Amino acid sequence: MSAIRDITTALLKFRDERDWKQFHNSKDLALAISIEASELVELFLWKGNEDVEKEQLKDELADILSYCLLLAEKHDIDILDIIKEKIEKNALKYPVSKAKGNSKKYNELQ
Amino acid sequence: MSAIRDITTALLKFRDERDWKQFHNSKDLALAISIEASELVELFLWKGNEDVEKEQLKDELADILSYCLLLAEKHDIDILDIIKEKIEKNALKYPVSKAKGNSKKYNELQ
Amino acid sequence: MSAIRDITTALLKFRDERDWKQFHNSKDLALAISIEASELVELFLWKGNEDVEKEQLKDELADILSYCLLLAEKHDIDILDIIKEKIEKNALKYPVSKAKGNSKKYNELQ
Amino acid sequence: MSAIRDITTALLKFRDERDWKQFHNSKDLALAISIEASELVELFLWKGNEDVEKEQLKDELADILSYCLLLAEKHDIDILDIIKEKIEKNALKYPVSKAKGNSKKYNELQ
Repeated sequence: MSAIRDITTALLKFRDERDWKQFHNSKDLALAISIEASELVELFLWKGNEDVEKEQLKDELADILSYCLLLAEKHDIDILDIIKEKIEKNALKYPVSKAKGNSKKYNELQ
Repeated sequence: MSAIRDITTALLKFRDERDWKQFHNSKDLALAISIEASELVELFLWKGNEDVEKEQLKDELADILSYCLLLAEKHDIDILDIIKEKIEKNALKYPVSKAKGNSKKYNELQ
Repeated sequence: MSAIRDITTALLKFRDERDWKQFHNSKDLALAISIEASELVELFLWKGNEDVEKEQLKDELADILSYCLLLAEKHDIDILDIIKEKIEKNALKYPVSKAKGNSKKYNELQ
Repeated sequence: MSAIRDITTALLKFRDERDWKQFHNSKDLALAISIEASELVELFLWKGNEDVEKEQLKDELADILSYCLLLAEKHDIDILDIIKEKIEKNALKYPVSKAKGNSKKYNELQ
């Protein structure tokens, strides 16, 4: 069993011990991811780009990732597969020749 | 080498081929995670809790996870470790006896 | 009739001509505000603090404010009143003597 | 002087008494709007569409609106004007004949 599968199993166990599956519909899981991502952003509010405490960063990243794993599991999605596929898609949207050193969105690239 | 390490290496390769490391400060990576999380939420806007297309879900989850891996790598954070630690922390914040069947935040639990 | 009341009336007219009231429950209006706020943030992604086009800023601010007015109207909330009340509350949370020149959150102020 | 101008003046006074202008660059103001919008969304997390306390709704809306007014003021933007302009733009993007009773985005309308 893979490491990601193990940790997902631990998340599901935590959820089920608390009988929380009833709350974890897809829309609210998406909201939870977004709310946790916003708490990550808040660590940097009014601050410099690298002005962050590592422990807080770990806490917020863990929350985001946990809800991502729960949403992926709910839809039987393999997170490694989808990241691989996304890299392939993005290689077409952002060809090196156009995107190199350029932070523009693909629809603004020339 | 683990599967997560492999996919992170692929993300870094993609980034470096495009010379994008210069844009990827921690604050903007956090913003990117939050923006992608909001695009995930948008899939559900004005819609029911399970009214979502799986392909779109995979796309948005992949974006969120990719930026999470890049931010974690930047700070030398092992994402499996931090999720494990978070489950342990949350077990204390949300004891089964109080949290069972209850969606309240830990600071509202009685 | 006040200027805010006038513009709210125009927003309601726009909504009702399209028969969109059925979609505008409070939760989804909150999501809409958050999604538009994230589009505002995206204008600044990978960019400097003031590196933004005014027309895009106006567009995103208008979207956020429109959904705020619709949500406030739905709950019979006067937006000027609540801002006034918030300033009074914040004056207690952030006394000048402690908060001056300090960007910390009230619960971190000493 | 208009009511919106009055409340903006009160917000600026609050800010300047605390010497906070130094933190209020455009990017961080946008982040603040988004963070407050996410706190608004959190009121609805794991809950029904109308399951919200009015006092909390007022609090979060006030925070979002306050930062919107500060960002608008910084760029000399009249919030009533931009909402009016947006309604006109949206009337073209969402013609009644196509959008009536339909929650799709303009680029998905047929």
